[in-house]
Amino acid sequence: MKGYYEPRSSSSCAACKFLKRRCIPNCIFAPYFRSDECKKFAKVHKVFGASNVSKILVEVPEEQREDTVNSLAYEAEARLRDPVYGCIGAIALLQRKMVELQHDLAIAKDRLARYATAAATATTTPSNSTSHDAFFNGHDFHGR
Amino acid sequence: MKGYYEPRSSSSCAACKFLKRRCIPNCIFAPYFRSDECKKFAKVHKVFGASNVSKILVEVPEEQREDTVNSLAYEAEARLRDPVYGCIGAIALLQRKMVELQHDLAIAKDRLARYATAAATATTTPSNSTSHDAFFNGHDFHGR
Repeated sequence: MKGYYEPRSSSSCAACKFLKRRCIPNCIFAPYFRSDECKKFAKVHKVFGASNVSKILVEVPEEQREDTVNSLAYEAEARLRDPVYGCIGAIALLQRKMVELQHDLAIAKDRLARYATAAATATTTPSNSTSHDAFFNGHDFHGR
Repeated sequence: MKGYYEPRSSSSCAACKFLKRRCIPNCIFAPYFRSDECKKFAKVHKVFGASNVSKILVEVPEEQREDTVNSLAYEAEARLRDPVYGCIGAIALLQRKMVELQHDLAIAKDRLARYATAAATATTTPSNSTSHDAFFNGHDFHGR
């Protein structure tokens, strides 16, 4: 019956459980793949392989290993969701959005510069207020 | 003497050369790791492992395999350059830049809205041109 059997070892980390091996006291994975984080390890293992993850962890200082595991988990998740582009898809999307924002900001700055010029002119020739309207109707942000 | 010996097989792809195996006609790697692209394969292999790369390639349609290899190569390159954050570092940087741009755009839009209000008022009461100056000195983009 389901639930009658103890898991392999309740103190084993998720990596050692997954790899069906004894979890030693200095296990490189144990601090970052808790016993209940089997899915997290499975994803990272499927994309990078346990051996490569272990090599990367050994290479970085201990205080940066948690960040390393989190970034690997994020990348693995993205690659499993989108096998073609992985997290490069997110980078491409952000770059597109940035180009749009830069474009909108350039338009806004241009409009502001024209307003400033019009305002400066208005202080010397108070009657030319129609130039504001002409400028104001000249540009539009793209639908936002 | 260097250059006297032929490479293992001049028709082998970079993957098969690297893995020291015979390159078969339907080799999954051959179309994407040309004979002279050993470094590209070495990087992808170091981060993902040849077996995982092969599994991913089998999983995606043939017409998307080139994009897949390119995105894997980009990710591998980023991870080797920055073992802690890999290409997640690029994502974080783009997100910070986006937040800055959104902030600047919000300020610009706010300034434009105030200019528009001031301009509308100016058309009805031509003498209040000083309100433009007061607004214009009130905000600043952050140093750009």
